[in-house]
Amino acid sequence: MISTIQHIIESRTSVNHFQPNRRLGDEVIESLVSQATKSPSAYNMQNWRFIVVQSDSAKGRLKSAAYEQQKIVDASVAFIVCGTLAAHVQLAAALQPCVEANIMEQQMVDGWVALASSSHVGDPALQRDEAIRSASLAAMTLMLAAQGMGLGSCAMSGFDAMQVVREFGLSATELPVMIIVVGYPAAGNWPQKPRKALSEVISVV
Amino acid sequence: MISTIQHIIESRTSVNHFQPNRRLGDEVIESLVSQATKSPSAYNMQNWRFIVVQSDSAKGRLKSAAYEQQKIVDASVAFIVCGTLAAHVQLAAALQPCVEANIMEQQMVDGWVALASSSHVGDPALQRDEAIRSASLAAMTLMLAAQGMGLGSCAMSGFDAMQVVREFGLSATELPVMIIVVGYPAAGNWPQKPRKALSEVISVV
Repeated sequence: MISTIQHIIESRTSVNHFQPNRRLGDEVIESLVSQATKSPSAYNMQNWRFIVVQSDSAKGRLKSAAYEQQKIVDASVAFIVCGTLAAHVQLAAALQPCVEANIMEQQMVDGWVALASSSHVGDPALQRDEAIRSASLAAMTLMLAAQGMGLGSCAMSGFDAMQVVREFGLSATELPVMIIVVGYPAAGNWPQKPRKALSEVISVV
Repeated sequence: MISTIQHIIESRTSVNHFQPNRRLGDEVIESLVSQATKSPSAYNMQNWRFIVVQSDSAKGRLKSAAYEQQKIVDASVAFIVCGTLAAHVQLAAALQPCVEANIMEQQMVDGWVALASSSHVGDPALQRDEAIRSASLAAMTLMLAAQGMGLGSCAMSGFDAMQVVREFGLSATELPVMIIVVGYPAAGNWPQKPRKALSEVISVV
């Protein structure tokens, strides 16, 4: 028996052509982001932020930063999924709700913050890796959540990151990791592209 | 109505305690990896590889590289999700099935390979970003696929990458991005850790 989630995972495709002028309700957008934030992150850092690009003017600016790709404009919404650098700085605040919910003791939170700080401080490469890792996990969840709602999506890494930073006012500790466009697929999209044979990508030890 | 996928996304937790000595069938492991490979990657590069760590001896070596975390041993299986550097080198081969399936013309594949090569050659930072991005997308899909099968999982980024490279014979163009342990949850696991308020992570423009 193929479960719903397996079907959703296996039937997802990257949508390049969307039906223009179809907005999504605020509750749909919030549900997509809320589901994305249920992804795991190291120490539960939640080192991510989601910029919902929805207005015509904002879409125009993002399209310009993404080498004029039309799907930015035609999709209902484009999410700029940002990863946070120096995530250890905000870890204590991120874990405070765990203390309040009696899931973690303050002493354990302090220990995690000390541990994360000792590895992240002065290691910009690790900070960058961690930002990309967390944002990508969240981006995948967002795409599958969209698919589960009958929407199409496409992950885009082809954009001018510095232009996105400037145009959308990202802080010095935010990295735009991926753009995810979401909307209603139009005609003319590709079928799912074949994948390598499993034997090429799997080793058992 | 909450759909199955939304429920799976929202109920997933990071499992730290697994029931030991519970193997997964080969068909389950292959289905998990197969689903993970349905994730998107830039140019459909599929710049990932999955090392299935299942034997007692291999688990012991991975546990040692992961600061002796017991869940590596207790989980049914640990996947080392690797991202591929210099992914442009294997892109033509990765897209060949698209040509054979008449989804892409050879000329388009050649164009993509030229484009990917022009950006990736001589840019190790981009290669690393792309490897982490693709492997993380695949890792998230694998975790949700496991959840959909009634299994628990945990994403681990706390390990000695160089030791993993040495112990498991990764090539010079492979980066261990994440370890995903999968198995049957035991008693004593944490509930889902609370997330930041949506208003802290979302901006609409």
